[in-house]
Amino acid sequence: MDSLPSHPIGVFDSGVGGLTVVRALMERLPFEDIVYFGDTARVPYGVKSVDTIKHFTGQITEFLLEKNVKLLIIACNTMAAVAADVVKQLALDVPVLDVIEAGARNAVAQTRSNAIGVIGTPTTVNSNAYARSIHHLNPNVRVYSQACPLFVPLVEEGWLDHPVTRLTAQEYLKPVLVEKIDTLVLGCTHYPLLKPLLQELAGPQIQLVDSAVAMADQTAQVLTEIGLANPQRHLPNYEYYVTDIPLRFQTIGERFLGRSLANLQQVKWG
Amino acid sequence: MDSLPSHPIGVFDSGVGGLTVVRALMERLPFEDIVYFGDTARVPYGVKSVDTIKHFTGQITEFLLEKNVKLLIIACNTMAAVAADVVKQLALDVPVLDVIEAGARNAVAQTRSNAIGVIGTPTTVNSNAYARSIHHLNPNVRVYSQACPLFVPLVEEGWLDHPVTRLTAQEYLKPVLVEKIDTLVLGCTHYPLLKPLLQELAGPQIQLVDSAVAMADQTAQVLTEIGLANPQRHLPNYEYYVTDIPLRFQTIGERFLGRSLANLQQVKWG
Repeated sequence: MDSLPSHPIGVFDSGVGGLTVVRALMERLPFEDIVYFGDTARVPYGVKSVDTIKHFTGQITEFLLEKNVKLLIIACNTMAAVAADVVKQLALDVPVLDVIEAGARNAVAQTRSNAIGVIGTPTTVNSNAYARSIHHLNPNVRVYSQACPLFVPLVEEGWLDHPVTRLTAQEYLKPVLVEKIDTLVLGCTHYPLLKPLLQELAGPQIQLVDSAVAMADQTAQVLTEIGLANPQRHLPNYEYYVTDIPLRFQTIGERFLGRSLANLQQVKWG
Repeated sequence: MDSLPSHPIGVFDSGVGGLTVVRALMERLPFEDIVYFGDTARVPYGVKSVDTIKHFTGQITEFLLEKNVKLLIIACNTMAAVAADVVKQLALDVPVLDVIEAGARNAVAQTRSNAIGVIGTPTTVNSNAYARSIHHLNPNVRVYSQACPLFVPLVEEGWLDHPVTRLTAQEYLKPVLVEKIDTLVLGCTHYPLLKPLLQELAGPQIQLVDSAVAMADQTAQVLTEIGLANPQRHLPNYEYYVTDIPLRFQTIGERFLGRSLANLQQVKWG
C-alpha cells in the first residue's frame, strides 16, 4: 500500500526511552499521528549481542509496517547503531530515520573546535556508529566516546539529581572532558533526563546535543521534502504498543513523555 | 522417564546471577553434574510484570525438563518470588527448590532478635515472598524489606568497591538498619559479590545470609533424603545454556562462577 500524508509516523525503541523522541515530535509536529513500539519485555538492548538485537529489530519493524506507517524512526541508539540495515531492507520504500544520524548531523553543524564527545550504552559506543556517521559528514572531526552503562538504571530509578548520579557522571565524563570537546552528544534516549546535571558538570562552554530534538527537526524536514507532511489541523492520534507493562511503567513512561500516557496496548511475543 | 542419581541438577536464572548458586553447588557437591540456563536475551526480569515472568519461567522449565534433570533449582529470586507455582506444576514429580525458601530458612535459623532485613529487586520485594516464607516458618519474626534496583547494574559494571556503590548502598540500607535487625538476607543472586561492602556498612553485629550457600546446603540435604545423590566420584559435567552471548559475557560470567566458563551454548528463542 502506498503511503499517504494522513498515515502515522512509526517510532520504536527497546523500552520507554524512545518516548523522549515522541515528545519532541509532538512538540515539533503537533498534527502528525504517531504509533510507538517499545520492547519492554526484552529491554535493555544495550548489553545484548548484535545478532540478538538484529533479530528483535526485524520483528518490531514488521509490526510497525503492518500499521501502515509513512516513515519509520529508530529512536533507540543501540538499534540504530547495529541494526539500521535490517530496518531499511524490510522497509523498502518507506523512509527510515534514526537518532544516530540526526545527532551526528546536529553535532557536526554545532562544533567549532572539531572535537565532539559522545556518550551512550556499551553496545552503541562499541559499534562506533556515531564516529562513522560524524566522519562521513566531516572527516576532520575528532570523536571521543564513552560508555555509561549506569545512566539508564539511574534514570529509571528517578535519581536525576542525586549525589550518586553526580559522582557516576563525574567518573564517566572525566576522560571525555579532558579532550577539549565543545559538543557532547547524548547518545541514548534516556540521557536527556540528565541534561541539567550533565550541562552543569560539562560547563557552559560545552553544547549538549539532545538527539530527540535533532530527530524531530530532521523528521519535519524529510516529511516536507517527500510531500508526506499531514496537512490536516486535527487532534492527532497516538498509539503505544509495548511487550510488557511492568510495575511503575505508567509513572516512568509519563516522566519520559512529559504528559499522560493513554491508548497503551500490550503485544505478546515469544 | 524416572530420575536417576546420575542425572544432572538443573539450575536457572534470568541471566548470569544464578552462576553464584552453581558455584556454591560445585563446592558443596563436587560430583554432581549441572545444567545451567540463563535467559540473557531477556534479562533483567526484576523490572518486568508478573504475567511476563511466569510465561518466560514456563519456557525455561520445559527446556530443562527435556534435559532429564533430577532436581530443579530456581536460582533467580524474582522467578522464585512470582513464578514458583508455574515451575512446580510443570515439574510434576521432579523436586523444585528455590533461593527464597533456602534464604528464608537460613535467616530464621540464625536470627536471635527476630528482626530480619531483606534486600532484593523491586519485583522480589513487592511480591512479599520472603516475608511470606519467613512468617510461614516463624510468625513472630519481623521482616523489613528494601528494593535496591541499582545493585544489579553496579555489580555488572564491576564497581564492587567503588564510592558510587558505597553511597548507593548507604542510601538503600538506611531504612533497614534503623530497625535493629540482626540478620540481612541478600535476596538477589547478584548481591553476594557486594558482600564485603555490605558487611562493612551493616557492621559486625549483623549476619548476612547468602542464599547461594543456603541453597547448596539445602540441595545436599534433599538429594540425600530422596536417594538421588550421585554416588559416582567422577569428574562432573557442566553445561551452560544462554539465550544471548553479549559482549563481556565470558568475563562477567566467570566473575560470578569464580572459574572458567566452558561448554557454553546459545539457545535461540522468539
